Amino acid sequence: MSLLVTGSVGIDTVRTPYGLNQDCIGGSAVYFSMAASYFTEVKFVGVVGDDCPFDLADLFRTKPVDLAGLEIRAGSRTFRWQGSYEGSMNEARTDAVELNVLAEQPPAVPEAFRGSEYVFLANTAPSLQMKLLDQLHNLKIVAADTMNLWIQTAGDDLKKLLGRVDLLVINDGEAKLLTGHYNLISAARQIIEMGPRFVVIKKGEHGSMMVDSRGNIFLLPAYPTDVVIDPTGAGDSFAGGLMGYAAQVGSVDTMTLQKAIAHGTVMASFTIGDFSIHGIKNATQEMIEERFDRLRKITQF
Amino acid sequence: MSLLVTGSVGIDTVRTPYGLNQDCIGGSAVYFSMAASYFTEVKFVGVVGDDCPFDLADLFRTKPVDLAGLEIRAGSRTFRWQGSYEGSMNEARTDAVELNVLAEQPPAVPEAFRGSEYVFLANTAPSLQMKLLDQLHNLKIVAADTMNLWIQTAGDDLKKLLGRVDLLVINDGEAKLLTGHYNLISAARQIIEMGPRFVVIKKGEHGSMMVDSRGNIFLLPAYPTDVVIDPTGAGDSFAGGLMGYAAQVGSVDTMTLQKAIAHGTVMASFTIGDFSIHGIKNATQEMIEERFDRLRKITQF
Repeated sequence: MSLLVTGSVGIDTVRTPYGLNQDCIGGSAVYFSMAASYFTEVKFVGVVGDDCPFDLADLFRTKPVDLAGLEIRAGSRTFRWQGSYEGSMNEARTDAVELNVLAEQPPAVPEAFRGSEYVFLANTAPSLQMKLLDQLHNLKIVAADTMNLWIQTAGDDLKKLLGRVDLLVINDGEAKLLTGHYNLISAARQIIEMGPRFVVIKKGEHGSMMVDSRGNIFLLPAYPTDVVIDPTGAGDSFAGGLMGYAAQVGSVDTMTLQKAIAHGTVMASFTIGDFSIHGIKNATQEMIEERFDRLRKITQF
Repeated sequence: MSLLVTGSVGIDTVRTPYGLNQDCIGGSAVYFSMAASYFTEVKFVGVVGDDCPFDLADLFRTKPVDLAGLEIRAGSRTFRWQGSYEGSMNEARTDAVELNVLAEQPPAVPEAFRGSEYVFLANTAPSLQMKLLDQLHNLKIVAADTMNLWIQTAGDDLKKLLGRVDLLVINDGEAKLLTGHYNLISAARQIIEMGPRFVVIKKGEHGSMMVDSRGNIFLLPAYPTDVVIDPTGAGDSFAGGLMGYAAQVGSVDTMTLQKAIAHGTVMASFTIGDFSIHGIKNATQEMIEERFDRLRKITQF
């Protein structure tokens, strides 16, 4: 089934204990598309300024990513993010951010993309996420991400959005902030009452959890790795593997989503193994299958 | 196979968001024995003062726990611990501690216990853990726990002890402190170089991880629960379920230990569901099997 993503393209500068990586490519839609492209064709909707130093067509040259929805806006500047990681590297510290073009009008969804059935609304203002949804007319599954900023500053919009979302992907701290529950099961159940049929809570190095509206719970540890170079984009790669696999199978029953979460976990493990998109870009189908099988083996008893 | 435990009996005062529980029974050997008693007979070695308000014989009346190694020491006072939990309740804050009888000579191992094959040395000074080991002559598997205090103040003794231990149970913060590694896989591998064939790292609400000397990894989430009343004793209940199951099977191959960790996870879930030992004391074989089966179901994909 067709999968559309809309989210950011960014110029990232990232410092981790392994070094400083300046002005590299980043952004939620980039990581998501790269991960999802191993499973299905991806329709990309995003906007950069005319200062953007990256050639996305070249970047995705060997991947089934349709860039017809990428706008290069004259006179605008590309989104920039500067962040750093320390210690267990489980959380990014934002050192500087320039929204630039992301603070302007969102990109339009090309006519050819408007019948997309699977949609992922990567993290941005909930009002923009809704404007994007308004342009689509054949929705089967809408998944979305959000963040602290919108929970704190756009709570009403976010609640409206949640009424239109089937699957929310959110990290543990955000789930607590959104619901006031420290207990993640309780938090997930409350989010389900806000609209989504499925809530997937990302816990970084501690893995992830899914709760559905019928009360089913699924728990999965993170893929074990002893070298984390750069966690940037791990959450978006996770979502890309998840939605890419679900769109490939063409179903979002609970069983499919459990396997989809395992694929998301594997895709995130490639991202964190190198700076920027190098880890996820250089994965192969064989490497993905190998890690998927190993993840199953080391979690069974 | 016979399972011996040595550890503390305590008078606990615990405050959690669910209330204050004053002067209740606690201590590592109590939680461990209660959990392990569902799987095998437990030989209990511990010491209390003559002020101890608890009747352990009555407490373990219906459980296969042999208290021949319980010493009630005249003129001494029982160990006391006062602690509290807030927020996610993942870590206890110690508000007050009186070592009392735990700072004196350790209890003797009764002659009838000295041939025990499975041994768990619950957390205490490594020098005392070694004195206990010296009294045993038929060891098959030695498992031990430790804590920050000994890592910081008795590192040399601890390293000697680790050379005599087959399986170390340790929490994530302690593993980082012991090795200097934030990454838990790296931390576990370094601990294996110190002696143990198996390292089990407890991560509280995030579950647990085992690494063995052949490089195998096993990951298991915590049993999901939306009500955590009192986490005190969860780690010792986990160890009790783990060692109790392993002693029942009579093996410590990797496959058995994976199932043992799942049983430990289940036993910890009973402990955190009520204050003090009420949750674990009132479990039944049927409840244990039900949670074990559910844990398997919700982690498979």
